[in-house]
Amino acid sequence: MWSALDPVGRSAHSGGYRRFAWTSEDAVLREWFAAECAARGLSLTVDRAGNQWAWWGDPDASGPGIVTGSHLDSVPDGGAFDGPLGVVSALAAVDALRSKGFRPSRPIGVVNFGDEEGARFGVACAGSRIITGAMTADRARGLTDGDGVSMAEAMTKAGHSTAFLGRDDEALRRVGTFIELHVEQGRGLADLGRSVAVGSSIWPHGRWRLDLAGEANHAGTTRLVDRRDPMLTLAAVITSARQAATDAGCVATVGKVRIEPNGVNAIPSSVTAWLDTRGAAEDAVRTVVREVGVAAGVAPTEESFTHETFFSGELSARLAALLDDAPMLSTGAGHDAGILATAGIETAMLFVRNPTGVSHSPDEHAEVADCLAGVDALTAVLEELAS
Amino acid sequence: MWSALDPVGRSAHSGGYRRFAWTSEDAVLREWFAAECAARGLSLTVDRAGNQWAWWGDPDASGPGIVTGSHLDSVPDGGAFDGPLGVVSALAAVDALRSKGFRPSRPIGVVNFGDEEGARFGVACAGSRIITGAMTADRARGLTDGDGVSMAEAMTKAGHSTAFLGRDDEALRRVGTFIELHVEQGRGLADLGRSVAVGSSIWPHGRWRLDLAGEANHAGTTRLVDRRDPMLTLAAVITSARQAATDAGCVATVGKVRIEPNGVNAIPSSVTAWLDTRGAAEDAVRTVVREVGVAAGVAPTEESFTHETFFSGELSARLAALLDDAPMLSTGAGHDAGILATAGIETAMLFVRNPTGVSHSPDEHAEVADCLAGVDALTAVLEELAS
Repeated sequence: MWSALDPVGRSAHSGGYRRFAWTSEDAVLREWFAAECAARGLSLTVDRAGNQWAWWGDPDASGPGIVTGSHLDSVPDGGAFDGPLGVVSALAAVDALRSKGFRPSRPIGVVNFGDEEGARFGVACAGSRIITGAMTADRARGLTDGDGVSMAEAMTKAGHSTAFLGRDDEALRRVGTFIELHVEQGRGLADLGRSVAVGSSIWPHGRWRLDLAGEANHAGTTRLVDRRDPMLTLAAVITSARQAATDAGCVATVGKVRIEPNGVNAIPSSVTAWLDTRGAAEDAVRTVVREVGVAAGVAPTEESFTHETFFSGELSARLAALLDDAPMLSTGAGHDAGILATAGIETAMLFVRNPTGVSHSPDEHAEVADCLAGVDALTAVLEELAS
Repeated sequence: MWSALDPVGRSAHSGGYRRFAWTSEDAVLREWFAAECAARGLSLTVDRAGNQWAWWGDPDASGPGIVTGSHLDSVPDGGAFDGPLGVVSALAAVDALRSKGFRPSRPIGVVNFGDEEGARFGVACAGSRIITGAMTADRARGLTDGDGVSMAEAMTKAGHSTAFLGRDDEALRRVGTFIELHVEQGRGLADLGRSVAVGSSIWPHGRWRLDLAGEANHAGTTRLVDRRDPMLTLAAVITSARQAATDAGCVATVGKVRIEPNGVNAIPSSVTAWLDTRGAAEDAVRTVVREVGVAAGVAPTEESFTHETFFSGELSARLAALLDDAPMLSTGAGHDAGILATAGIETAMLFVRNPTGVSHSPDEHAEVADCLAGVDALTAVLEELAS
């Protein structure tokens, strides 16, 4: 399975992946998922937001099932594991259960969530946010990418009708328990010398946009005192974000910037900067955003925010015990599992060791042995929960 | 003429122009120029770099001529006047001379220089640099745009052979004197209450590239102390450029930046920033660039540099006297006239009042009365020099 995915959306330039929602790369990944499910005789349904669900057993007939899976899209120049590891491991776990003759007493589902990274339209976990109602259909339809294409247009072009976009109680009702396996995005397991951890919570996190106004003018003939150069404000945003995050014990990142017109000899007319802030304490996160806004002289626009999300404590403890007392780790990364947990679904996560902690980078890596340990752990979990 | 040019390459979004070298917009502008020249019975030649020259009279038979003109390309979201005013005024001056029955004793040429702004391939005045040998053909061919398309590929696609690209002595030999009329890009004339000025010199100016290395990583899970975030270096580049320019009495601009991968939740792997620095004194310009390099921790790569360029003092004094003692102004903006002056051609410039001084912006403006005064001045100059 891994080798079929390897070339899809891979940049020859960076070696990283560019798998954005509702693009042709995304279509190839969705077709791959459908074909793998068909090869296993799993029955595929697509929900109102376009997320793909494949079922072993009938969740409508036999009550809600145990679902596992993740996403196949990527950040710009992302790594191979963030997302796909959870989908591939889910399918591999189904294979492992079948090869040992396991007969589930509850339906088992495998899910491919769409648009988890939000790389194209700016809102992470768009697929799970839409079906849980955490994002309204109207807001989703109106989100636009860097070329001004709306999510509604992109979905329609990709063949997914937006007429029924929105909260999908039918899809949610089928999910009794959701387990997401994901490559770890820090060094917790590497430091502990373990292969697999159980997730405890996701930090409060969000994205804010800062619209920095300037006045376009000639770089050679405009006196410094006559300039309104938004790049100076950008510099203040970047430095204040780092300082405020350091002071508050959070992390803050300015990773995306749009400069108009972005010409060597033109003072920019405007700069748009995006601020990503996360931390263990919500108050601290809010303080960082406020201080960056003060430095910028504009109020940051909140594009998304997620409160601290706790996975099911009871379920997580049960999984940790099952997996040789696996360590519990919290994370600064958002996941579809967090959206489902917030929507009231019993949810847990498994993390697979990342030797360097590097993620959202072509250098993201996991050893084969750890990936196989992850599949074994997921198989054991499904067997335990579906017995 | 002005109304035909108005819509070409105009952005509905900004109202500014995006007329880049060897694009379809550029082709429309070149066809427009050829048609205007044909309508006047001027004979058109295209030189080795693709610059268009239209002749009233035969410079090969009757010795070198008086040439006037400018360029039709623009910076990203540029104004309507920077470049086109000089070309349109040149054609209008030919019309004015003919309507008064003037018979030139020397050939008169009108030129449209290609790729003056360097908006696509990064080197300003590419057309004049190539034919004077200030830029080698090999370097020009290898310059690439933001999509990785080389200038050679772009020229070939636009139907201009690059086989003969390079210094063009035949084209240069025809130019006895060059007069470029241009909208002023500062407030000198507005402050003086005059319509037209004569150029004295162009400040030393150049462009430098700073390659800022980082390490791609996840914005939510990477501890601040573990980060190598090139955005912090970018902030230092921006603030040090302003500080050093203030200290040295120059201007410095960071107007163009490329961020990889430019994702909200990804620490960038690299940032490329371009620095534009100009000033009356070359030493001061060099000091600014050095100090920005120290702040960035990398040596700036010089993409282009032009020493202070003086136009012909004798010719300029003659024109100023002819034009009611027009004021003399130096400028921080580069022009093809500067490249030709450096190549030893007798050269002068005329500037037309810009009421706000704004340029390289959709808000760039010149009053109709001042534009007509510019045409009158240019007509008088051509009549004087070609009598």
